[in-house]
Formats: sequence, structure tokens, C-alpha cells
Amino acid sequence: MSELFDGVLATGPVRPEVGDSAWLKAMLDFESALAEASADAGLFERAHADRIARTCREAYFDLAELGARAAATGNPAAPLVRELTAKVGGEAAAFVHFGATSQDVLDTAAMLVAVRALKALRPDLRACADLAASFAETHSSTVQAGRTLLQQALPVTFGLVAAGWLAGLDAAGARLDAQRPAVQLGGATGTLASLGAHGPAVVAALAARLELAEPALPWHTERSRVTDLASALGQACGTVSGIARAIVLLAQTEVAEVREVGPGGSGGSSTMPHKRNPVAAVAADACARQAPGLVAALLGSAAHEHQRAAGAWHAEWRPFAELLRSTGSAVHWLRTSLERLEVDPGRMRANLDTGGGVMLAERVTTELVATSAGRDAGIPAVGRLEAHDAVARCCERALAGAGDLVDLLAADPLVGSRLSARRISDLLDPAGYLGSAAVFAERAVALHRAARGRTHRERGEGS
Amino acid sequence: MSELFDGVLATGPVRPEVGDSAWLKAMLDFESALAEASADAGLFERAHADRIARTCREAYFDLAELGARAAATGNPAAPLVRELTAKVGGEAAAFVHFGATSQDVLDTAAMLVAVRALKALRPDLRACADLAASFAETHSSTVQAGRTLLQQALPVTFGLVAAGWLAGLDAAGARLDAQRPAVQLGGATGTLASLGAHGPAVVAALAARLELAEPALPWHTERSRVTDLASALGQACGTVSGIARAIVLLAQTEVAEVREVGPGGSGGSSTMPHKRNPVAAVAADACARQAPGLVAALLGSAAHEHQRAAGAWHAEWRPFAELLRSTGSAVHWLRTSLERLEVDPGRMRANLDTGGGVMLAERVTTELVATSAGRDAGIPAVGRLEAHDAVARCCERALAGAGDLVDLLAADPLVGSRLSARRISDLLDPAGYLGSAAVFAERAVALHRAARGRTHRERGEGS
Amino acid sequence: MSELFDGVLATGPVRPEVGDSAWLKAMLDFESALAEASADAGLFERAHADRIARTCREAYFDLAELGARAAATGNPAAPLVRELTAKVGGEAAAFVHFGATSQDVLDTAAMLVAVRALKALRPDLRACADLAASFAETHSSTVQAGRTLLQQALPVTFGLVAAGWLAGLDAAGARLDAQRPAVQLGGATGTLASLGAHGPAVVAALAARLELAEPALPWHTERSRVTDLASALGQACGTVSGIARAIVLLAQTEVAEVREVGPGGSGGSSTMPHKRNPVAAVAADACARQAPGLVAALLGSAAHEHQRAAGAWHAEWRPFAELLRSTGSAVHWLRTSLERLEVDPGRMRANLDTGGGVMLAERVTTELVATSAGRDAGIPAVGRLEAHDAVARCCERALAGAGDLVDLLAADPLVGSRLSARRISDLLDPAGYLGSAAVFAERAVALHRAARGRTHRERGEGS
Amino acid sequence: MSELFDGVLATGPVRPEVGDSAWLKAMLDFESALAEASADAGLFERAHADRIARTCREAYFDLAELGARAAATGNPAAPLVRELTAKVGGEAAAFVHFGATSQDVLDTAAMLVAVRALKALRPDLRACADLAASFAETHSSTVQAGRTLLQQALPVTFGLVAAGWLAGLDAAGARLDAQRPAVQLGGATGTLASLGAHGPAVVAALAARLELAEPALPWHTERSRVTDLASALGQACGTVSGIARAIVLLAQTEVAEVREVGPGGSGGSSTMPHKRNPVAAVAADACARQAPGLVAALLGSAAHEHQRAAGAWHAEWRPFAELLRSTGSAVHWLRTSLERLEVDPGRMRANLDTGGGVMLAERVTTELVATSAGRDAGIPAVGRLEAHDAVARCCERALAGAGDLVDLLAADPLVGSRLSARRISDLLDPAGYLGSAAVFAERAVALHRAARGRTHRERGEGS
Repeated sequence: MSELFDGVLATGPVRPEVGDSAWLKAMLDFESALAEASADAGLFERAHADRIARTCREAYFDLAELGARAAATGNPAAPLVRELTAKVGGEAAAFVHFGATSQDVLDTAAMLVAVRALKALRPDLRACADLAASFAETHSSTVQAGRTLLQQALPVTFGLVAAGWLAGLDAAGARLDAQRPAVQLGGATGTLASLGAHGPAVVAALAARLELAEPALPWHTERSRVTDLASALGQACGTVSGIARAIVLLAQTEVAEVREVGPGGSGGSSTMPHKRNPVAAVAADACARQAPGLVAALLGSAAHEHQRAAGAWHAEWRPFAELLRSTGSAVHWLRTSLERLEVDPGRMRANLDTGGGVMLAERVTTELVATSAGRDAGIPAVGRLEAHDAVARCCERALAGAGDLVDLLAADPLVGSRLSARRISDLLDPAGYLGSAAVFAERAVALHRAARGRTHRERGEGS
Repeated sequence: MSELFDGVLATGPVRPEVGDSAWLKAMLDFESALAEASADAGLFERAHADRIARTCREAYFDLAELGARAAATGNPAAPLVRELTAKVGGEAAAFVHFGATSQDVLDTAAMLVAVRALKALRPDLRACADLAASFAETHSSTVQAGRTLLQQALPVTFGLVAAGWLAGLDAAGARLDAQRPAVQLGGATGTLASLGAHGPAVVAALAARLELAEPALPWHTERSRVTDLASALGQACGTVSGIARAIVLLAQTEVAEVREVGPGGSGGSSTMPHKRNPVAAVAADACARQAPGLVAALLGSAAHEHQRAAGAWHAEWRPFAELLRSTGSAVHWLRTSLERLEVDPGRMRANLDTGGGVMLAERVTTELVATSAGRDAGIPAVGRLEAHDAVARCCERALAGAGDLVDLLAADPLVGSRLSARRISDLLDPAGYLGSAAVFAERAVALHRAARGRTHRERGEGS
Repeated sequence: MSELFDGVLATGPVRPEVGDSAWLKAMLDFESALAEASADAGLFERAHADRIARTCREAYFDLAELGARAAATGNPAAPLVRELTAKVGGEAAAFVHFGATSQDVLDTAAMLVAVRALKALRPDLRACADLAASFAETHSSTVQAGRTLLQQALPVTFGLVAAGWLAGLDAAGARLDAQRPAVQLGGATGTLASLGAHGPAVVAALAARLELAEPALPWHTERSRVTDLASALGQACGTVSGIARAIVLLAQTEVAEVREVGPGGSGGSSTMPHKRNPVAAVAADACARQAPGLVAALLGSAAHEHQRAAGAWHAEWRPFAELLRSTGSAVHWLRTSLERLEVDPGRMRANLDTGGGVMLAERVTTELVATSAGRDAGIPAVGRLEAHDAVARCCERALAGAGDLVDLLAADPLVGSRLSARRISDLLDPAGYLGSAAVFAERAVALHRAARGRTHRERGEGS
Repeated sequence: MSELFDGVLATGPVRPEVGDSAWLKAMLDFESALAEASADAGLFERAHADRIARTCREAYFDLAELGARAAATGNPAAPLVRELTAKVGGEAAAFVHFGATSQDVLDTAAMLVAVRALKALRPDLRACADLAASFAETHSSTVQAGRTLLQQALPVTFGLVAAGWLAGLDAAGARLDAQRPAVQLGGATGTLASLGAHGPAVVAALAARLELAEPALPWHTERSRVTDLASALGQACGTVSGIARAIVLLAQTEVAEVREVGPGGSGGSSTMPHKRNPVAAVAADACARQAPGLVAALLGSAAHEHQRAAGAWHAEWRPFAELLRSTGSAVHWLRTSLERLEVDPGRMRANLDTGGGVMLAERVTTELVATSAGRDAGIPAVGRLEAHDAVARCCERALAGAGDLVDLLAADPLVGSRLSARRISDLLDPAGYLGSAAVFAERAVALHRAARGRTHRERGEGS
């Protein structure tokens, strides 16, 4: 966290959910729920639990002081428990943190932080998907140059492009929704020995109170929940990065098929008054680029020793929070970019036309082969490679300025003997050669609408 | 791949599934199935498809030559298609690779390679889980020192430790089983333009023939399938690494609670005749350690430009294959290690006893608090911190050689006035302080058995 | 290594230097030199050393068999030593591998492999730098649009762009040249105990014979040499990637300022006869993109336990070789791309002119401020922000089609009252606003020439 | 940065040098020095520069506000410049940030931050090296079990172990000292066009004033300086991690050869009063483990587009600061751990003796071969493998409890016929088999002393 840089690198609603106050609250929520769950299980009187819970809600804790004292034991949970115990006081003090260990506090807090961060992130991610779906529908017949290796290839529609974005966003959302963060409670070595036979009951009650999953056994050093969440976030960032870079490329001065139109001065340059930078897409990409290293950090510290790791556990805290923060910020910036996005169908068509029809040369090749594959008596069949080479020769001459491609093809002995100039001209029209672009885009939108409907119903929301 | 190093780094049944021959076969399976699927959709005569399919099955292709020629176009699919077309010859030649692009071949081949590699990997992973389950049951009451930060803490059972391994292995297996690799077919820019209106039908038939999922739309530059698979493999490696390092730590000369007993000379040292190295666990860890960097590579190349990436796509091939290979090898080595594993319950108990009972000091603390929490008239209540400090003082003296811990505690004014020497002695017995270890271990095993049963039923296998 | 993919991912002269045969040769070179070094130090008779050395040179070893047997001990050096000992036979057999451990063989072999790979890589890297230097000189006054965030900003020269490439390439070369790979010899635990007092002498003689540096002490688990080399290679890849992506961006259909003109069909598309893909730049980037994950893998395994790591050491082999191979391939592809590169100064100028002079608006701002900063009586001073805003307004109107920028500026009250239309026109000419582009480019070239001269002299080469 | 976690993850003197205030100061230092440098070059009057410099020193800037406004342009330099310009006011305002672009501010600030962070880090790193050197000398004859793959192998000295630490620390220090951070000044596109012919003079004066290197040309998108610094920090972390994990392993309850003795409660456990955790080493490792992912992030964003990157540049800020902070914290924790370290030579010897002499079996093998290599008439020569196998058999029997190793060897026909029981006993004494351990350790210390002397002289410090 940095006040100076977070305007760019940690924007949006996730940031406050992963800051110090959010962690402190989550740790106190754990202690509070643990006390109540222990009382549920009959371990001690309800009054003690209530007193602990009230203190967790109301008492003030000095974050900087807790942090400073964390150095002595190696984690901030230990000083928090000491402080909380002192604040609770009286008989109830003996039941603070009862049966738990520092890692129980921090691991459960991490899961709560994750749940709350994801809850803040999902509306932004859904908004991105809705915007992509809207582009997919609005531009279902907006012809655009398809580009492979950044070279114009065959035509696509901008609707199909947006449908691809949508598919990635929905896949990312589904992976995040599949997360089932679980409570952590095992005591010093995962046996909950100090709770006697009550361990499982307390775990169940704790999970219910915190609305987290109940694990089969403590997972102090079985970190698949952490790496699975990390992977889902990393995947979301990969999707955001792909869309953001596409926007940056389409917004290039020389391409200019889209641009971000932001409020006031946003996107302006300090030295160049004429520039309109795709700031939101750039920032989205900058945030999303944090993910591979952060996921690698979490995977690289996934092997935890025995009943508590000597370093690998502590090493998780920073990348775990950073990954939530960066992903939240990346998604929020992408939403901003998509909200600002202006699409220029005229420029898309104009860019497509600069190639002089060469783009659809493949179509002529295919037609030549298909025609020759017919039973047409006099004309000998032509193989795919042969057709390909003939067309390629004409294209090279057209690109070299030797004339219009239709004329050159019509004059070619192999091509002209099989196809009329008019047929060649039709074949070279991009709008007539979009294959299943519309069908594919519709499918992605339909899946999105169906998933959105499910979500609405599950939440009991209206439309 | 390396003949010299693969004995260590790429062993087991996955290796042949991700080698050059496997890729070639997968690419030819694509071309073959594409031809048949096109015939299914009525695009051309069945006889052409059959001829193409037969050539794919029977013709010989020179891997080195294809690889060398790949440099000209930037991928090995292009020269393969040229060569295949030539070998098919005749009219059918015109229908080789019909409507497809190089990336369709390679992406689908990658998915086939992944499916086959995972099929080879799963028995090893299941065997690891079965072995862990077996240890969890056999050693449900084998007492062992629990260790946090590599220091002895409270007792656990080796059964609980193995149950933790089991939970990680089953989570990894479930993530791998959740993968649904999809066919790729989009033509040059994802519209399948050259197939006219037949695109979706051909995609569906192709998916059915290759037993891959049918995607809503082509995913040339929407790489969530690749990153999701990578994440699942990375997670599996994290689990393997954790278990392998635990075995290495438990096998240390000074700990000696487990050892690998391999066949013949395995684990012997070239210069030290007396050593028995945990070679399989070491190799498992070495393989699993490849994952974080490989996953980062795939996440770092997840943003693909427009309709085909200029570098990010090509950059996937190596880490994709390496990650499958390394994970397969890691899991295979872990299976070997677990099969070789000899557990020494006597040594586990002996290691536990070296601490002179200090380990269970927490239990005395808890009892002091619990006793004082009762209504017992004369004795004043004792707070948790107060009890903690009193016990800590006795432990320090015991560790400093000032006497037996039971005696020291009994002589302590705060402790001795509340607990008898006999009670103290009982409290310090590790076997009596295992909490829910057995319950937790049983749960993990029960979940494993249930999941195994499901798998068996789904496959129609006997028990 | 893969025959199928290496045409793209592992091309050029480095590949054979890091393959299995190269590793085997390097291991045998170690055994041979160790025997001779031991004889140098008087440990045994020269005749034994000669016999060992001759066997190392002449005997045949089956790579696959060595690899398979490596599984038993966990590394391929152990079976090689057994095999070599058997082949040497007689009295000399007792002196094979005398005093050494497996890690000595493999670590020294790794250093030899690195030295030889770098020797193969450097000419390609130098060629890249020479080509960049040549572009920097040839195009010292070729005006091009400078682009920030992929938006046209102020003009640069292509010479300056190429000089930036040159600076990166020379920095990468210097970092590689600064590597001083050292011999490894420590015996089982780094004491060379079995050599008695002769250890240091043998190390010195071994280093001299292999032309490697002599370390102060064995570095079995002090891996800074490995991570330093990895870092240098990673840095080289970062540079290659930057240049390669620049080429891909400049080669875009809509930009078209450069293109790769390769031999024969290279860069052609299998389905689109008209395309000219920048295949070499794409492949260079694909190779260079391997580096971050591989460097992370080596850094992530840099912490080695005690006197030999249980996994971290074995985990180095793959990424170490891959990183050399990928870097070699990336540099080779970049050389190819630069050799094929055709620059189109006309198109550069045309792209620059499409902005209608808006690009140089900053210059008008600066002039307004500078003029007003004079003491010129009647006209009130104008602040930078005020000038900036006035010019920005005109630019927005020009881009909105409200007229020619010169006219609009001349008509603006704030601007027109201070600058003539002619002065405004001059100010908007890109060729007159290149600042120190030429000086900067010349400096980079001069440094390059000086470094090249030093290299030549050090090697005693002619010009 | 996090108040809650930084007590563990960001401790020591580097933290304040990389925080928001440090960045703000560095940016203002740039603006101040730029104004003075421009006046040096005669671009405008000294009085303007002085006024700007004074404002930079004295004015208050609201970090949170700057950060919030950074979102509009995508970086915090732009709002800072606006604010600074307003605060300077008057004629001088026109010369604030004269000729520069936002990236000039931030890149130069990053270099200043790095220089200051390294200056804060070096004393800690030197202290670590001094402590390691001291251990190397004090324990030059403290015998310890050497361990390979965590199994006891041959003896070493703790002095040699510490010398290995020293070598790594000095290598890390040398790599950091070799950094030559350079000033950044290029204006919008790296030509410094608005400075006319004065560009190089201003760059030179700016570099001199900020005590940074002067680059040959602007490096806005040539990031080798960033990746080189990142690599050096990553390497330092690798070294720290290796030492920290060694301490954790040696401090294990069952090994107990070292322990951290911290002040007051440090290292105590919240629930287990008897534990003494190696908290400082654990925290050092946790911090150092951040490095691989952070270095990968910086390498993965090393390819910058054209004259300013659209995302890759912004993506550097977080990992750049984090890497400095984490490395600083890792080194500081390591210093703390080494300062707290208590070495137990008695326990080292005791651990060594538990193997019953089996450890030195290799020595018997070597002696057998060496003896037989003599021309001693009657006794036939024995080959290395033959000797190895005979000794191995005896070891296996000894470890199986069949008797004392000396007796078993003396009774073996092959061994007993060549070596006396007394000779065998001598051969099995660890203290007599340390090879060049002392020489190697002395060399590392001597190099360290020499380097320290150089540093002292360069700084003009007394001894």
C-alpha cells in the first residue's frame, strides 16, 4: 500500500478490503466467533463469550504498535491476543483465543479478507462482462480487420472480438465463484488437543458463524486453498491483461479503432496537449502484470514444513494481499476503460480497405479448389497448393503496385479461366466473409445471460 | 527432454505422453478427425476423409525435418500440413486441413496431449493418495512430535500427518479432474469463414470425435483453458513438494523417523558407502520445484494480441509441455518414495521423549486455568497469562537441568497448590493429549474412500 | 529439447552447446582434467592420469543408459563415474574421480557448458549490436514518430531508436562478459579431505587446465555464481524482447515502418498468401519470454541446505540449460530479424504527417513561454499552464476538423498576438525539432565502437 | 507497506528509504536539481532555479491527494509538477520541470531511492559478513557433521560453513556495489527537444548534482539498469535465504547445534512456554522468499514499447520498491539472527559421534586403495570398487547393530589383511579428516578483510 502509487496501482473497492484495518477486523472477527462457537459447544459460559465478542467489536487497537510488537514472535496475531486478553480482563480473559494458535487467527483472517475482497471485486468483474456482452451484441456486424501476429489477416467483427473478451471474463468469474475458503482451527499442532473431544464441534460452529467452509481437518501446512485462490486471481489478471492490451493496440494513433473518452483531463499528457492516452487500459494492464510474479511467490512457498512452516507461511502474507489488491485494481480499471470506450466502426472499415482486397485472397484460393473439385468437365482440377501459389503471385504484384487485385486475378491464366471478375470481386468483399462470427458471438452472450440469471436467482435478486 | 537428466527429472508414465512423437500423433489425430468431422457435416465426400485419416495413421513423418522447416513459418503445424497434403495426394489433398489454421492444429494437439498426460498421471496420483490413506489408518495412534518452525511443539500422530498429505493429494486430484480441455477450431481469425455456415457443426463433430469439450467460440487468444490447467498442475506440484520435503526432514540422520528403503543401490552415495539418501523424495521435490516458474511463464504469456499472438502463443509450448512432464515426474517420484517409506514409531516416540515433558507444559497451563475456573472455594482463580508464566519458569529450569519437570511443577507454589504430582504426570503424557487427531484423520480417509468409490463407479470398474 | 519445436524455440549455435552430448563431454573434460591436475600435484603417476584422460576422450558412453541409471542415485554423474572407472580399468581405475563427488562433476560441467554456450552466443549478440549501430548511423536523420503509450507524441529519429537498442545490447554483452565461471572441487562435503593437504593445489591446477576461475572455497551450496549467470541471461532476454516487440509493432499493417524480408517462404502464412509475418522477431520474443520464469526458478532454488541440497540442486539443471538455450535462440532470432529488416523512411514520415502538426504543439507552448519570459515591453508574460491550455484548445479543434492547426493557432488571441503564422509553421516542422537525438545516437555508437575495439585487441584479432 | 505486517516483513533501515515520503523527496530532489542544472547550462536565470529549489525543499505536498490525482494521468509525477508549478508561482513557474517528462521524474526518483536504500542496506550486509567472518575464525576447528541431502556425510568445521556464508554475502555485496544508477532525462520522447542544443549539458549537470551516473542516452525504454539492480537484489536474497534456512535446520530440536538467543520474549510461542523459535532466521527467510517473484515481475515487464511503455513501466513501481524493502528487511533480520546466534560445539561433536564412525568409512576405502597402490609385494592390489563394497558391507552390519565398526573392519578379510585396528581407529576420527577446511575458510576471511580494507580506504575511514 502506498498513498502515492495506489491511485494507479490499487484503485477501486477491493483496496480497503485488504488493508491493515480489514486484516485487524478479520482477526477480531475470528476471536469473537471463536469465543461464541466455544460457548455454543458448551466449553464455557455464554457470558464470557459475549464479553469477548463485545471487546472485539468495541475496543481500539493501535495497528502500528501491534505491528512493531509482531517482530518479537514473528506474527501480528500473538501481540493482538495478548492485548485483547488484557482488554477483556476478568474471568472471561481466560477464554480469549481458547484452544487456538496464532496461525488459526491469521489463516482464518486471510480467508475472511479474501471472501470480502472477492465480494467487492465481483460487481466490477460482472460489469466488465456486461459491457463486453453489450459490445458483442451492438457490434455483431461491425466489420473489422482480424489480425494475426499483428498483421491484417481475414475480417472479423468487433462483436466477435468482444465476445472473446466476454468468454474470458466469465471464465474468470466462474473460477472465482468456485472458491470455498475454509475456516482454520487446529491449535498448536492441528489436533485441537486443548479442546478435548470438543474440537470438531467448535470448528463446525466457527465455520457457520463466519460463513466459511468447514474443512475435514486443519490445513496449517496443506496450502491448496491458498494456491487455488491465487491461481484463480492470476487467471483473472491474465484475462484483464489480454483485453487491456487489445484496447491499447486498437487505440494506437495509426489504428484508432477505439479510444477511451474519460472525464476532464484524464488521459491527457503533461507535456503534449493533443494526446488522449488510454490511461485506464494502461493502468489495468500494469495492475494485471503483477499477477504472474505473485502467483509464483505463493506457489514457491506452498511447501510448508511439518505443523507450521518456518518462513513459507510468513512469506504468504504480502503476495496474498497484493494479489487480491492488484486483481481488484486491474478489474476496476478495466471496467473504467470499457465504460470509456468509444468504438469507431468507420475507421475499422477504412483500415480493412487499405489492403486493397489482398486480405481475402484465401477465399479465392478456396473457391478455386472447390470449383475444381466439382465435376465441371473441361477444366482440370487444381490442387490447394497450386491455387495458393497462383493467388500469392497476384497478391505480391498488387502489393507492389502492379494494379488492382481483381484485375490481376482475372488476368491470371489459372484463376481467370475458372472465375469471373465479378465473382472475384464478390469473393474479396469482407462483409460477405464472416463465417460463424455472429453465431459464435451470440453463443458467448447467451451463456453470459444464463449465468447472470442463475446468479440473480441464487441471490434472490430481481432482474 | 534430455536423455541424461530425464532419469531424474522426467521419469514415469507422463514423459512419453508429452514428447515429440506424442505431439505429432496429436496433430495428426486433429487432421484426421477434422477431415472426418467435415465429412460428417457434408462438406465433402467421406472417401476423401477416409483417405486423409488413413494417411494420418500410416504415413511416416520425419520429426527433425518438420522441426527444421518450422523455422520458416514459426510453427511446426505449417510444414506438417504441407507434407501431409503431399502424402495424401489426389483429389483428397484439397481437403486436408480444410478451413483450419496452424493454431487450430497446435492448440487442439496441446489439449489432446494434456488429456493423455493427465490420464497417465492420475493412477500415480491416486496411488499416492491411497498410500497416504493407508498410513493415516495404520498410524492413527502412532504418536509423533508435532513441530512448528521446526521446533518440537505438541504431539500429533503420524496418522494425522499422513491425513494432511492425503487431503492435499485429493484436492490436487479434484482440480485436475475438473479440467475440461476443449477443441480449437476457428480458421485464420476465428470465424471459420471458409466453412460457410457449417462451422459450428464441424466444431461439434470434431469435439465429439476427439472426446474434447466443445467451446462456445474459438479461443485462439482467450487462454483461460491454458492458465487453468497450468494452475491445477502448479497446485499439484505444491502438494508434492510439501510431502517430499516433509519426508526429507523426517529422514534426517538426527530425526530418523522415516526412511526410504529402495531396491538395490538406490539412494546409495558414490563416495559414502553408509548413506541411505531419500532419493525419491529429493527427486520429487526437484521436479515439483519447476512449477512456480513454469506457471509464471504461462500466466506471463496469457495476454494474446488480437486474433493470434505475436510471441505469447509460441512462448506457451515449452512451459506447457515442461509443466506436464515435471508434474508427472514429481508425482511418480512421490509414489516411489511413499512405496519405499519405512516408518519408525519407536524413534518417533523416542524423539518425543527427549524434551522431558516440556512439550506438554501448555496442558498444565490449561488445566490450571480450567481448575481455577471452577467454583472451588479456597483457591483463588488463576489467569491464563499468570499460569503461562509460572509454567514457563519451571520449563526453563527443567531445560537448564534444574530437575525433572514434574517435580519442579509440583514444587511451584502456584502450580503445586492446585495440581497433584500424579495429575501433573498424567498431563505431561503425550499419548493422552492428541485431541481430535484421530477424528480429523478418519474424516480425510472417509472423504478419500468416497471419492475413490465415485471414480470407480463412473468408470464402471470393480472394487 | 524437442526436434519438433526447437526449429522455433531453440535455434542457432547455442543449442548444440547445451545438449546431452555437450554435458557428457563437459563431465568427461572434468574427469580428464582432474586426473591430470592430480598428477600435476603429485598425487599419483602421470601415466594413470594419461590413461584416464585418453579414456575420457575416446570411450563411448550410452547417454540413455547413463540417464536411466541416474535414477538410482539421483544424478547422472554417479553412473558415469562407475562406467568410466570400469572402462579405464587396471591400476589407473583407482584414480578415476579421485577425491571428487558427483556435484563436483556436474557443477563444473555446468560451468563449462555455460562458457561454451556464451562463446557461441556472443558473436550473435555482437552481430545484433553491430546491426543496431549501423541502423543508428544510417538513420541518424530519418525522422519518425516518437510514441508514448503507443500514441504518437514528439518526433524522434529511427537512428535514436536503434541507438537505444544498441545500448541495451551492449549492456547485456557487458554483463555476460563479466561472468567468471569457476571450477567446483570439494569432495563429499567441501573439505577435499581425501586429498590431504593437496586440495588447493589440485583445485588450482584443475582451474588452469579447464580455463575456469579458481574459487576461494568450494561453492556446493553457495550458488551466487549460478544466480548471477541466470540474471545476466535474463537481462539479455529482456533486451531482446524489447527490440523484438518494437519490430513487431513497427511492422503492423497499419504502421508498416519496417518489415522483415526473409528468404523464400519465411514469414508466409499457411492460409493467407498475402501476409508477410515478422517471424524472426516473433520467435525472438517467444524465446526471450522464457527467461523470467526460468530466472525465478533458479532464484527460487538458490537456498541450498548444508553441504548438498536435497532438491534445490537437482532443480537447477533444467532451467539452467533451458535459459542458456532460450537466450541463445532469442539472440540468434533477433540477429536474423535485424538482418532481414527493411526500414521505410517514407512511411515513417507519412505516419508522422497524419497528425496535422498537432504533435509539435508542445513546441508552440514552449516558445510562448520563452518569448514571454523576455522583457519585451508591450506583451504581458504568459505562464506555462496558460500557454499549455491555449494550445491544447487549438489542437482539440484541429483534431475535430475545425481547420489547419497553423491557422487556428495564428487566430488564437493569446498565441497569435505573440507568434507569426510563419514562426508557428516552422515550429510545427518535425525535422526541426529533434533536440539531441543525433548526439545521443552518436554517443551510443561511439561507446560500441570503443568496446568492440577493446574486444578485438584483447583477442589479438585484426579489424 | 503495512503497519500490521511490516514489523515482520519490512523491518530495518531500508523501510523508510522506500516509503511514500522517500519517493516524494526524491521526485522533488529531481525537480530541484533539474532547475539548478538548467541554470548551470544557462537556460534561465539562477534566481528562478533557486526559487524552484527552495519550494521543493520547503513546501508541503499532500501525498494522498497527489496519489488520488495520479489516476487521471496514470502517474504521480504529473500532479506533483502541476502542484509544484502553482506553489513556485511568478516568472519562475515557467521553468519548473523545464524540458522534462513525467517518466524523467519517476525514473530518476527510482534511482535516487535505490541509491539511498542501498546505502541503508550496506551496513547491515557488511555486519552480516563481519559476523560470518568472525564465526569462520572462531570455529575454524569446531568439528561438525557435514550433511548432504540432509544426511550426515563427512565431517566439516563450523568455520568452513560460516566461510561459505561469508563468500555468499561478499558476492552479494560486490554485486550491489557494482550498480551505477543513472539519471534519467529525455523529455517526452528522449530527444530533449525543448532544450535545443543544451540537452547533454543539462543531463551532465543534473547527474553531477544528484551524484548519479550520466547515461549515454535516455533510457526510458531501455531497462537494463532496472533489471540489473533487480538481479543483484534477488541474488542477495538467495544468499540470505540459504543462510537463514541453514540456521533454522541447525536449530531444530533434534539437531540443536545453534540457537537464537534474543532479548526478552523474542522467539517465544504464545501457547508453548518452552519453545525458543529462531524467529529472526524465519523472518529473514520469509522476506528473502519475496525475491524470485519480484525479480520475475521486473524481468517480465522489461520489454517497453517505443518511447514510453503502456503498462510495463507502471508495472515496475510496486515490485521495484517491494524488492528493495524485502531485501533490506531480509538482510536486517539475518544480521539480527547472526547477532543472536549461539553455537554449541559440544552438541556438534555429539551429533557427529552418533553414527559410530560409519561417516568416515570412505577414508578406509581410500586408504585401502592407496596402500594397495604401493608396490608392497605380498598383498595384491585392491580396486576402488572392490574396497568400496567391502567397507560398505561392514558399515551395514555396524548400523544393523552387529558390532563396533573398527572391530568389524579389522575382522574383514580384505580390510583386516591390509590395515591394523589402530590404523582403522585413527582413520575413523573426524577431527583428523578435515582436509582443506581451514585453508578454505582462511581464504574467504582474507578476501573479506581485503575488501573491507578497500572500502574503508575509499571512504577515507579509519580502521
